[in-house]
Amino acid sequence: MQQVARLRISIIGAGNVAWHLAPALASVTDVRQVISRHEDSAGALAARVNAVCGLEGREKCCKATASLDCLYGDSDLYLIVSNDDSIATIASSTENFPGIWAHTSGSVGLEVFDGEKTAFGSFYPLQTFSKEIPVDVGKVPFFVEGSRPEVLETLKSVAGLVSSRVYTATSRRRRALHLAAVFACNFANQMWAEADILLRKEGLDITCLLPLLEATLGKLGSLSPAGAMTGPAQRGDMNVLRRHIEELPDEEMKELYRIVSQRILDASHPELII
Amino acid sequence: MQQVARLRISIIGAGNVAWHLAPALASVTDVRQVISRHEDSAGALAARVNAVCGLEGREKCCKATASLDCLYGDSDLYLIVSNDDSIATIASSTENFPGIWAHTSGSVGLEVFDGEKTAFGSFYPLQTFSKEIPVDVGKVPFFVEGSRPEVLETLKSVAGLVSSRVYTATSRRRRALHLAAVFACNFANQMWAEADILLRKEGLDITCLLPLLEATLGKLGSLSPAGAMTGPAQRGDMNVLRRHIEELPDEEMKELYRIVSQRILDASHPELII
Repeated sequence: MQQVARLRISIIGAGNVAWHLAPALASVTDVRQVISRHEDSAGALAARVNAVCGLEGREKCCKATASLDCLYGDSDLYLIVSNDDSIATIASSTENFPGIWAHTSGSVGLEVFDGEKTAFGSFYPLQTFSKEIPVDVGKVPFFVEGSRPEVLETLKSVAGLVSSRVYTATSRRRRALHLAAVFACNFANQMWAEADILLRKEGLDITCLLPLLEATLGKLGSLSPAGAMTGPAQRGDMNVLRRHIEELPDEEMKELYRIVSQRILDASHPELII
Repeated sequence: MQQVARLRISIIGAGNVAWHLAPALASVTDVRQVISRHEDSAGALAARVNAVCGLEGREKCCKATASLDCLYGDSDLYLIVSNDDSIATIASSTENFPGIWAHTSGSVGLEVFDGEKTAFGSFYPLQTFSKEIPVDVGKVPFFVEGSRPEVLETLKSVAGLVSSRVYTATSRRRRALHLAAVFACNFANQMWAEADILLRKEGLDITCLLPLLEATLGKLGSLSPAGAMTGPAQRGDMNVLRRHIEELPDEEMKELYRIVSQRILDASHPELII
């Protein structure tokens, strides 16, 4: 059987997402360069990529680069794995090389490439990435979109090389997923951060609530979040709600408590106002 | 070996907490009666208790009762498993029978029994209970407190019969745990409810985010919530924050988004104001 040439990829960005995506891609494609203004981050990620691909010959080695001027002109895919705010700048300050340009953002539409590139799309992994925490990329849902059918097909193939869960999604649906993920993931995590602050005042921390958190999340396998709700606001226990607000240490936490509790009351006891 | 008489327990309340606690207690004590204004709930829970204890003889059978006037005078423990708001009323409208009176609330202090009962305490299971979802009571942390050392010892023994994780906690520490649990559990769950609302508009629901939620919670095993934070607010991506607020369907969700995002910004980018 003839060996098919491996896709050549340039990765722009070396943050949390690139940290997990680049090695996964490097095991099935040629990740040839990592570009980041932060030279140290680019170097660390290139080294991580090279460890994965085993450095088979000098020409296959992944290079770390600090300037967009050093982008190779003949990559098959330019993957922009940067802050959402930087995508437009990167799109407009690079040449229109003939490969496919794609970003990994949940909230930026394809129009960011309009007039700048000929072939483009999105390549959105719906997952939370922290450098310290391993991620099983094979189970991450990828939502892809392409400026033309053949671009979409290529991006689907690339995603299919690293994950078993690949879906197409319009920019509109991708934005809804991203916004929902911010509530479900970042905002829920902020509630854990608030709990951690309260517990540390008593010499405890969030770890003592882990069994409770696991049970809370476990309910979502069989109940909707509204159906799984418990606690004083869901019961309409106004005395507890008022006492909790008194106990909270500052005005901002009190306001946060009020607004979230009112959202819960609105669903379970619409006649009650905190 | 002589058989030691089993502790005789009256349970007041038949909601989510009693639903899981009463059968666990019935396997190691004599749960003799379940009292609830809601006769149906009391009946359903008494049947559940009798199924556990196998109905060994008529006199050991758990009775369902709708009136506090029917409380047995010779129980060893009167466990008030009711709404927080009802505890004071129950304490004042029942006779001062000589057994131990205890409530299962996280936020009500022992003073609710002052002047009403002679022996009393708290028996707080730190867990979220829904009737539909099984709970492994053996792993639930119990926080107990007693009006006298021998009351505390009895409550510790009872908790130790059903769980391997029993701690003593002052009312102050118990209140801190309860307030933190409201943030960590109920408020995080409300964030999932908000995500569910947003996804349903697109024909999706929260289940498509479950792998993401599991990864988010999984991080807390090795990182603090502040260290595990990701997302646009943590990155200071103000364009995304502003676009998200535009996309949200009503003023209350916009305000919720603003206040939670500002809390995240305060921790990561204190100079930024949304």
